[in-house]
Amino acid sequence: MNNITIRELAEKLKLSVGTVSKALKDSYEISEDTKRRVREMAIELNYIPNLYASSLKKRKSKTIAVVIPEVADSFFSLAINGIESVAEAKGYHVLIYLTHESFLREQNILHEFKSGRVDGILISVSGETTGSEHITGLLENNIPVVFFDRITDDAKTTKVITDDFNSGYLAAQHLIDNGCKKITYLSISKSLSICNRRMEGFEKALSDNNILPREEDILFCSNNETDNLKAIIDLLSSGYTPDGLIISVEKLIIPVYQACCTLQLNIPGDIKLIGFSNLAASFILNPSLTTITQPAFEMGKAAATLLFNAFEKSNFILANESIIIPSQLNVRDSSRAKI
Amino acid sequence: MNNITIRELAEKLKLSVGTVSKALKDSYEISEDTKRRVREMAIELNYIPNLYASSLKKRKSKTIAVVIPEVADSFFSLAINGIESVAEAKGYHVLIYLTHESFLREQNILHEFKSGRVDGILISVSGETTGSEHITGLLENNIPVVFFDRITDDAKTTKVITDDFNSGYLAAQHLIDNGCKKITYLSISKSLSICNRRMEGFEKALSDNNILPREEDILFCSNNETDNLKAIIDLLSSGYTPDGLIISVEKLIIPVYQACCTLQLNIPGDIKLIGFSNLAASFILNPSLTTITQPAFEMGKAAATLLFNAFEKSNFILANESIIIPSQLNVRDSSRAKI
Repeated sequence: MNNITIRELAEKLKLSVGTVSKALKDSYEISEDTKRRVREMAIELNYIPNLYASSLKKRKSKTIAVVIPEVADSFFSLAINGIESVAEAKGYHVLIYLTHESFLREQNILHEFKSGRVDGILISVSGETTGSEHITGLLENNIPVVFFDRITDDAKTTKVITDDFNSGYLAAQHLIDNGCKKITYLSISKSLSICNRRMEGFEKALSDNNILPREEDILFCSNNETDNLKAIIDLLSSGYTPDGLIISVEKLIIPVYQACCTLQLNIPGDIKLIGFSNLAASFILNPSLTTITQPAFEMGKAAATLLFNAFEKSNFILANESIIIPSQLNVRDSSRAKI
Repeated sequence: MNNITIRELAEKLKLSVGTVSKALKDSYEISEDTKRRVREMAIELNYIPNLYASSLKKRKSKTIAVVIPEVADSFFSLAINGIESVAEAKGYHVLIYLTHESFLREQNILHEFKSGRVDGILISVSGETTGSEHITGLLENNIPVVFFDRITDDAKTTKVITDDFNSGYLAAQHLIDNGCKKITYLSISKSLSICNRRMEGFEKALSDNNILPREEDILFCSNNETDNLKAIIDLLSSGYTPDGLIISVEKLIIPVYQACCTLQLNIPGDIKLIGFSNLAASFILNPSLTTITQPAFEMGKAAATLLFNAFEKSNFILANESIIIPSQLNVRDSSRAKI
């Protein structure tokens, strides 16, 4: 008697499939009497609604949400373009929600999605986010979530990331190859996956080059521009001035240039720079900035494609896995040994 | 008998206000019998629902939409911050919709709002938008819309803009003062309000300085990066090479620098530049870029404040007027007579 279909149930009741479906959903269009009959027969015949099909049918908002910390970052604006290139072809709207690096805002935004406002979610977590409980709740409600770039390790879903460890290693090795001996790594968060992986790569490169990583080689900046400029000026005017900086997030690039200008430090003569950035203006900066460029558009596109696969294929499950798309080193003047 | 309140109607029917309200909304919680009684009495007593109050009550999405062409533009990312600073204090969500400069996308997005998905809309129109019919429809549905930056003149609502004519004039006068005689104005749209106002200011400045504006002094670029770079290279390598460029939108700044680099033109020696931009990196470009800086954050904040005023005050009507917040000239190296 298992796996009876709604059609068989309707035949048994001598009702239309539509009426039975509405009755099972407690629709006000159906009389209480009919609802009772349908429910009793469903129990008797052991009718189990196809939850996945029902969820697919519910996917009517034709909308996906992109939850990101900010838009004033070239990575995210390019990733949005990648996401929209997929969504547009599917006739879907893309809504952008900004957390401004606040975990509280992220929680509030995600909580709203439980009502089914959107069909699926692409997320890059805030700098304050440490756990995944707010995401697990959505997955349990059968709302697919795909991470891109900034992830939480314990979330049981697909993550589209870049090779952050390798990139951190590559950045440090590049500076070492060009003569740096005292490299400082600039981070904005102690919890953010991308900052930590890049930092681990940086530390490994130091070790492999027989440089002992010290605690002071990491500078944690904040979300506040003025504080960051001050912290960087303090670093560069301290007794132990670094000869190389790895700028792990784009928003720290401008304060670094500003601090060097204030302190009249020549880039790359006095200090060499490498930044993680997709800034289109990198090559017209003074001097042009060596970057680790992430495949932002491709990451957005891949994350969106996986999400739509989950929508469309009844047997597609978002696996708990990481899909890695590599980043690229673009050498420019800010890190040259001699120019 | 006019203007009977729902309370009076309920008293007459010996029902609660809640029941009457639900009955008038055809709620499934209310029996058909009661609904019929309520409807009949409402007609008999000439009860006219307070549409505005009803609309205010309906403003439950606690969400406003921001419809903009793109996020990869510093003006819009700053304006979003201004908007969110107001919305957050009111406990509202901000949803960002991107048109990618397409009128069709803009129409589709706005059409969706008629269902009441959002409580109000802040919009900066696409480069293709010429009329306001798609916006008039929303206003008629009692969904408030406030324009910011890019407007359509015929839309009968409030527009928060900057002094584009004056800024165009100021930009041209600045280049003339620094020795330019052959200035070209770079635009991206023949219909966009901001590009046209700035262009009119530019032309007036030429006239006032006894320079005859010619048709060739305006270069219309497109939404395509490769085409734009080619068009700018063609312009700068033509027989009539300009000695000054007014870059009226941010996205043309990088191709201009790139073209100058390709053609080995010295900025500001061979050609002087001024750009309309809020790019934080302006001062670290090579050379640093003279800009007309718009009050992006303030414009977003003002537009959002007006929208919330319309939500909150029953007698507040969004007037058909323009609120102007002035822009500012920031002189840097790209336009200097001698450096």
